[in-house]
Amino acid sequence: MSPKTFFERKGPFLLKDLFPEKKIDQNVTIFDIKNLNTAKENEITFFDSFNYKEVAFNTRASFCITTEKLKKHLPNSCNKIIVNNVLLELAEITKKFYPNSDIDYPDSTLINVDKSKYSNVKFGNNVLIGKNVKLGENSYLGSFSIIEHDVSIGKNCVIGSHVVLKNTIIGDNVVIQDGCKIGLKGFGFIPLKNKNFRFPHIGRVIIKNGVEIGSSCTIDRGSLDDTEIGENTFLDNQVHMAHNVKLGKNCMIAGQVGFAGSTILGDNVSIGGQAGISGHLKIGNNVKIGGGSGVIKNIEDNSVVMGYPAVSFRDFIKDGKKND
Amino acid sequence: MSPKTFFERKGPFLLKDLFPEKKIDQNVTIFDIKNLNTAKENEITFFDSFNYKEVAFNTRASFCITTEKLKKHLPNSCNKIIVNNVLLELAEITKKFYPNSDIDYPDSTLINVDKSKYSNVKFGNNVLIGKNVKLGENSYLGSFSIIEHDVSIGKNCVIGSHVVLKNTIIGDNVVIQDGCKIGLKGFGFIPLKNKNFRFPHIGRVIIKNGVEIGSSCTIDRGSLDDTEIGENTFLDNQVHMAHNVKLGKNCMIAGQVGFAGSTILGDNVSIGGQAGISGHLKIGNNVKIGGGSGVIKNIEDNSVVMGYPAVSFRDFIKDGKKND
Amino acid sequence: MSPKTFFERKGPFLLKDLFPEKKIDQNVTIFDIKNLNTAKENEITFFDSFNYKEVAFNTRASFCITTEKLKKHLPNSCNKIIVNNVLLELAEITKKFYPNSDIDYPDSTLINVDKSKYSNVKFGNNVLIGKNVKLGENSYLGSFSIIEHDVSIGKNCVIGSHVVLKNTIIGDNVVIQDGCKIGLKGFGFIPLKNKNFRFPHIGRVIIKNGVEIGSSCTIDRGSLDDTEIGENTFLDNQVHMAHNVKLGKNCMIAGQVGFAGSTILGDNVSIGGQAGISGHLKIGNNVKIGGGSGVIKNIEDNSVVMGYPAVSFRDFIKDGKKND
Repeated sequence: MSPKTFFERKGPFLLKDLFPEKKIDQNVTIFDIKNLNTAKENEITFFDSFNYKEVAFNTRASFCITTEKLKKHLPNSCNKIIVNNVLLELAEITKKFYPNSDIDYPDSTLINVDKSKYSNVKFGNNVLIGKNVKLGENSYLGSFSIIEHDVSIGKNCVIGSHVVLKNTIIGDNVVIQDGCKIGLKGFGFIPLKNKNFRFPHIGRVIIKNGVEIGSSCTIDRGSLDDTEIGENTFLDNQVHMAHNVKLGKNCMIAGQVGFAGSTILGDNVSIGGQAGISGHLKIGNNVKIGGGSGVIKNIEDNSVVMGYPAVSFRDFIKDGKKND
Repeated sequence: MSPKTFFERKGPFLLKDLFPEKKIDQNVTIFDIKNLNTAKENEITFFDSFNYKEVAFNTRASFCITTEKLKKHLPNSCNKIIVNNVLLELAEITKKFYPNSDIDYPDSTLINVDKSKYSNVKFGNNVLIGKNVKLGENSYLGSFSIIEHDVSIGKNCVIGSHVVLKNTIIGDNVVIQDGCKIGLKGFGFIPLKNKNFRFPHIGRVIIKNGVEIGSSCTIDRGSLDDTEIGENTFLDNQVHMAHNVKLGKNCMIAGQVGFAGSTILGDNVSIGGQAGISGHLKIGNNVKIGGGSGVIKNIEDNSVVMGYPAVSFRDFIKDGKKND
Repeated sequence: MSPKTFFERKGPFLLKDLFPEKKIDQNVTIFDIKNLNTAKENEITFFDSFNYKEVAFNTRASFCITTEKLKKHLPNSCNKIIVNNVLLELAEITKKFYPNSDIDYPDSTLINVDKSKYSNVKFGNNVLIGKNVKLGENSYLGSFSIIEHDVSIGKNCVIGSHVVLKNTIIGDNVVIQDGCKIGLKGFGFIPLKNKNFRFPHIGRVIIKNGVEIGSSCTIDRGSLDDTEIGENTFLDNQVHMAHNVKLGKNCMIAGQVGFAGSTILGDNVSIGGQAGISGHLKIGNNVKIGGGSGVIKNIEDNSVVMGYPAVSFRDFIKDGKKND
């Protein structure tokens, strides 16, 4: 079984110790912090955007950090902790549970690989492997690559050189080309004067069977959630995936495309080179996005869009004709 | 002499074994698969786009994979093999000839450089060199760089650190900065349900004298053809060149520019930062392309274009004024 | 004290030897070449754009390379050297003073770190350190990273793996993620037929306290000036900063943003993913630039802009509505 997080969890904590300024009397114990849809009894979650009200309504979490305005969307079974800045409180509490997840310290368990431990794997030169790494048979690892503790790689995979893998679970028949940096902390923080508060990143990167990732891509791990790439999806070079992004199956993502955080793609989506997809969007199945486009709103299944902001292909061509 | 391909070729094959479903009676032997303009007697080529009809008309190939619609553009001397999906057939046959060219397995001949073999070359630390690598005198190689088998580097070159070079021929006085990944397999595959068919890449990267390539660029090798950079052309950081792209002489390519596959630039072309050039285009000599532009059609010599889609500079400015 | 430049300076030179074709009679000695605002007595500077006329008027340089048209903006105390191509003359003379600053040769002083010399620093595997490197206590350096001669890193810093640092001064509490290449020569040269003249880069990269830089960023050092990142500014992955760019404090720069050379940002600026900022611009304080925007002119304090070319957010939305 793959770990749900690669980070050591502290706690449990008493609710009143997590919110010392709230004057909570009860002696309630909190065991973990999770997303709205994964948190359970004696766990705490957060709810900070109207967009997630349906998930909020169905949460099984015992406690939820939220605002006065949003609290009505949570079920009665969930105790509301009302705050001014949900994300700051969330970050502070997540850091209490997972104190080492906000900065990527180098893995102190890395050693030059002991090849005898992995008899059916082929290694380049100077490969570094951390504790508890799993490598499937008939896989290759290129030179100067770093596979940090607890990473798991399936069978028949080819990992290039100068690659970094951390907090990542990889299926079978996956190709990752040279220079990719996968599973690093995402770009999340609460801007504070003089010292930003870094958002802890306890999520993982999940790469399904048959995926191919081009050279020099950066794929950040999730914050509370995971970042995911569905089966048989291919990425070209220099693609950037921010935290919590989820790509469906059989997608084609061309070079230098960028995904902002928490956006979700369906299956069979193709995206042309240098397109940018804003954060927290939902892109349907079978969508085609033209190269260089800037997508700033949700896109329905089977759409073809282009431009910045991206519009239907027909409108884009019509608009372009004015300049001909 | 530099090799025409870095990959071992299998064969020859009987034509009827290459197309078992075609019920071919003749005992014809095929020795290689090449482009329309390089294939010769007893070699096979492909023709899948009307754009290449002039090259098709002059091909000297004995056999050509094509479609019912396109076959009339081929000369009588060329035997037509009619298929539904030219690229899929092409990929399958190329993989028969060159079975290891569709995935970049790490070079098993890499060793820590034996400096005594290259007495006039200066090395950083931990440089890995493959079999038959040629290094010109007075060249430098930075630390943690990887030069795979049969790569050739000319005189007075400076190769940075964390660089990967494979399937690449480099002239004299070339500078390649840190982190570049050059000669890797391009982003080409036939999308199939559940398992894409990767297009073999048997081409090379040819870098002419006096070229400079900024940090962290990715330059993929050609599929059947080569990827090329002409003399004295300079690239800034984080540029992406897809397979088969050819840049002319004395070009200036600013940071984060991306070239989709098979596009050809003339000489003295300058491109501003973050511009994107679509695939299979022809950009003339002395063209200037503004930063951030998206070029989606051919551009004539001496043009100045800007915008997305890129239009003449005059139209771009005029259009912009509406918002002032 | 940190060095003002990491490059060995030759000279002093007689003025007449710097401009042999100018027939200068005086036996004046020149000790250094600097910017308009830093050059002093017996030093030479340059002035090539009307945009810098106010700085020119206040220069304390004894000599200035300029044009017939611009010379009137310089003070009487400054001797004008009139030339046709200011930048070419400047490059040639800078190269006389700093002959090794136009190409990044690998640092020959690099060795595998002697950990006993830095008792309060934690190292990954295979870290290379050059001569006179300063590492602050409680800092971390990741595997396969290269810290070239005279680089200085403050306390409590975390430098990832596969990082290159040269010609760089780093404050305290700085995080630099995997794969960043910082302090390399910028993309500056005088285009000449058959052989460009590379502009020497004698500047540094200055990274202030509390900065965070995402994975695989490229940050070039300054040419005559420095490249700078102000306190508490955070950069996401794959950001490109060209030479001489200066970012203020508390800025947020999202993924794949690109800055062309010599642009200056104020404090509290936020820039969305994939935006591009042209060169030689001034962006005010508290500016917000939307993702994917192309900024081609100066922006005043407190503005919110979007689009390409970037316009006020209101105009961008209005313009977009035409396509809805």
